[in-house]
Amino acid sequence: MLIANWNKTTGWGAPSIVPYAPLALDPASSVLHYATECFEGMKAYRNKRTGKVCIFRPELNARRMNKSCDRVSLPTFDETEFVKLVQKFTAVEKRYLAWQGEVEMTETDDSDFLYLRPMMIGTSARLGVTPPNDAMFLIIASRLQSYNSKPLRLLAPSPEEAVRAWPGGFGNAKVGGNYGPTMKIQTEAAKMGYDQILWLFDAKRRLVTEAGAANFFVVWTTPKGTTEIVTCPLTEGIVLEGVTRQSVLDLARERLAGPSFNVVEREFSIDEIVKAADEGRLIEAFACGTAYFIAPVELLGYEGRQIEIPLKMGTSGFYAQTIRRWLEEIMYGETEHQWAVTV
Amino acid sequence: MLIANWNKTTGWGAPSIVPYAPLALDPASSVLHYATECFEGMKAYRNKRTGKVCIFRPELNARRMNKSCDRVSLPTFDETEFVKLVQKFTAVEKRYLAWQGEVEMTETDDSDFLYLRPMMIGTSARLGVTPPNDAMFLIIASRLQSYNSKPLRLLAPSPEEAVRAWPGGFGNAKVGGNYGPTMKIQTEAAKMGYDQILWLFDAKRRLVTEAGAANFFVVWTTPKGTTEIVTCPLTEGIVLEGVTRQSVLDLARERLAGPSFNVVEREFSIDEIVKAADEGRLIEAFACGTAYFIAPVELLGYEGRQIEIPLKMGTSGFYAQTIRRWLEEIMYGETEHQWAVTV
Repeated sequence: MLIANWNKTTGWGAPSIVPYAPLALDPASSVLHYATECFEGMKAYRNKRTGKVCIFRPELNARRMNKSCDRVSLPTFDETEFVKLVQKFTAVEKRYLAWQGEVEMTETDDSDFLYLRPMMIGTSARLGVTPPNDAMFLIIASRLQSYNSKPLRLLAPSPEEAVRAWPGGFGNAKVGGNYGPTMKIQTEAAKMGYDQILWLFDAKRRLVTEAGAANFFVVWTTPKGTTEIVTCPLTEGIVLEGVTRQSVLDLARERLAGPSFNVVEREFSIDEIVKAADEGRLIEAFACGTAYFIAPVELLGYEGRQIEIPLKMGTSGFYAQTIRRWLEEIMYGETEHQWAVTV
Repeated sequence: MLIANWNKTTGWGAPSIVPYAPLALDPASSVLHYATECFEGMKAYRNKRTGKVCIFRPELNARRMNKSCDRVSLPTFDETEFVKLVQKFTAVEKRYLAWQGEVEMTETDDSDFLYLRPMMIGTSARLGVTPPNDAMFLIIASRLQSYNSKPLRLLAPSPEEAVRAWPGGFGNAKVGGNYGPTMKIQTEAAKMGYDQILWLFDAKRRLVTEAGAANFFVVWTTPKGTTEIVTCPLTEGIVLEGVTRQSVLDLARERLAGPSFNVVEREFSIDEIVKAADEGRLIEAFACGTAYFIAPVELLGYEGRQIEIPLKMGTSGFYAQTIRRWLEEIMYGETEHQWAVTV
C-alpha cells in the first residue's frame, strides 16, 4: 500500500510504498466519529496490443478526489502528483495483472483488473467537531476477474422514505457519508430480489438520480419521435460526477449525436420512464461506474409495478453494448487514445 | 477504554476494559470508506450532596445509539446491557472526577465532568458497499472542566447552499456522515466571527432545524399574546432526538406550560424569528445538547442582517437560565430524581 501523511503545520510528508498492514489509529480519530473520509475507485489493466499497463482518465479521479477532500475538510493536494503516485503504485502492483496476449501466465499474474482505491482519512485524535489537523492518504488495491454480470433489477423506493442526496448536501462528493446510510434499504431490496436501489429525489418531482452507487442512463424515443439518451445533470449536486458517466456522454456526443439522436443531461422523473414504457417508447436503460462498468437494466420495481426494460441484444440494450465496446476498445484497443494512460 | 467485538456469525464477544491505545484497523475497513460509524455523547459527574457519580438518562442514549446503528447497518444490542457497560466503565474512570463537597482533592480527581463517548465502527475489511460482518463497540472518555461560555453567535446560510439533513435521509441519527460535511461551512462562519451554523431546511419554507450539532429553541410572544417556547419536531427526521432537547421539553411542559405559556414542537421558519424580532416579540433563543448543555444565543446572521436576540438576564435569557438551573438541580441536586442514574 502507498501511504502519505499530512499535518496542518508541516504539510504533506514523503509518500512511501509499504507492505499491506493494519493502520494504528487512535480511537478518537476524526475519521471514526465524523466521517472525515473520501475515496476514489480506479482500474488498472493491460493493453491487449502492447501488454503495457494502463489506467483510465486518472486526471478526472484526481480532480474529483480533491473536491471530495475539500467537502469534508480534508487537505487538498497537487493533482499531477496524485496521478504520479497512482502510476508509481500501479507500476509496483502490476505484477498481478494477467497478460492478455501470447505470454505464458504464472500463478500470480492472473487478474483481469487491479481495482485501485485511493483514500484519505482524518487522523487527528480530538472529539471536537473541527477539521482534522492530521490526515493520511493511502492507495490500496484488490485483484479482480472480469465478469459478465446479469442485467440489473432495480427497486425505486418512494423519495418520502429514502433519499440518497439533496441540494446543498454532499451527494456529488465521494465521501463515506454517502455510502453507510444506503446499505440498509439496499439489503431490504436484495431480500426482495433486486440488485440495487434506483434513487429518486423530491416527493413531488420524483427525479431519477443514481442507481446503487452508479450513474444511470435511459434511452427512449421522445413523443416527437427523436431518440434520446438522458441522464441526471450535475447542476443540483445530487449525483456523483462519474468518470464513466462523463465518458459515456463524451462518446455519445462524438459518435451518436445527430438530427434524430440527442444526448441530454436534464432532470427527468420516473413517471417519464413509466410513461415511455407504457407507450412502447422505452429503448433501454443502464447503470455505469468504475466498478459496474456499463451494466444493463432489465427491470424496475416502482410503486408495486414491475416495469420491464427492453434488452434488444439479449443481455443488453444496443446502446449499452455499443458504448461498452467503444470504452473497451479505448482501454485495450488497437489504437492510441488519450483516455488510456500508460503507467 | 471499553471494547466489545461483534461478528455476524458469532454475535457479541465479551466486553473488556483495557488501557487506552491505538486500534489496529485494516485499511479496507468499512468505517474508513463507507462511514459505518455512530456514537453517543454522555456526561458523568458527581452529585454534590452524596458525592456519588451519576449519569443522565442513559436509557435515552442507549435507544438512540441502537437507532443510529440500525441506520448505518451496524449491529444493534441490548439497551440494558449498554447502560450497564457505561456504568461499569464510569465506575473505573470516576477517579478523575472532582469532589464537589468538603473532600480534599488530589491531582487527578479535578475534572468537573467526564465526557463519555460510546461509539461503534464497522471493521470488516472488504471494499464492496455492503453491511459490515464485523464491528467494534467502544467507550472512551475525556476529562472536562465546566465553563461558562459566552452567548452564541449563529450564522444561518441559505438552504440553497447548505443543508444539514433531508427527509428520507439520516439527520436524526448520530452517524459520522452528519458531521464531516458540516465542518467546511462552520470554518467559514468562524472566520466571519460566528460560533455555529443555524441550519435551515427547504429553500421555500426556510425551516429552522439545528444550531451547529445541537438542537435549537426559540421563545417568543405570539401575535395573539401568549408566550411560546418552540423547537423543530422530530416527525420529518431532520433533527437529532437530543436527550437535552427532550429534557427541556419535559421540564417546560411540567413546570412552565399553562393557559398563557405553550410548549410547542412544530415547524417554524427563520422569517418568523425575524418578524418576531422586528415586532419586539422575540424573548430569547438557545441551543442545547450534551456538549453545549443550555447555550443562550445573542445574535443571528441571516441574509446580511444581524438580528440581536434579547438576553434578559445579561448573559442568558430568563427561560434558558431557569431550565439550565432545573437541569443542574436534577443532576447535582438535593433531591432524588429518576433522570440522574447513580453509577
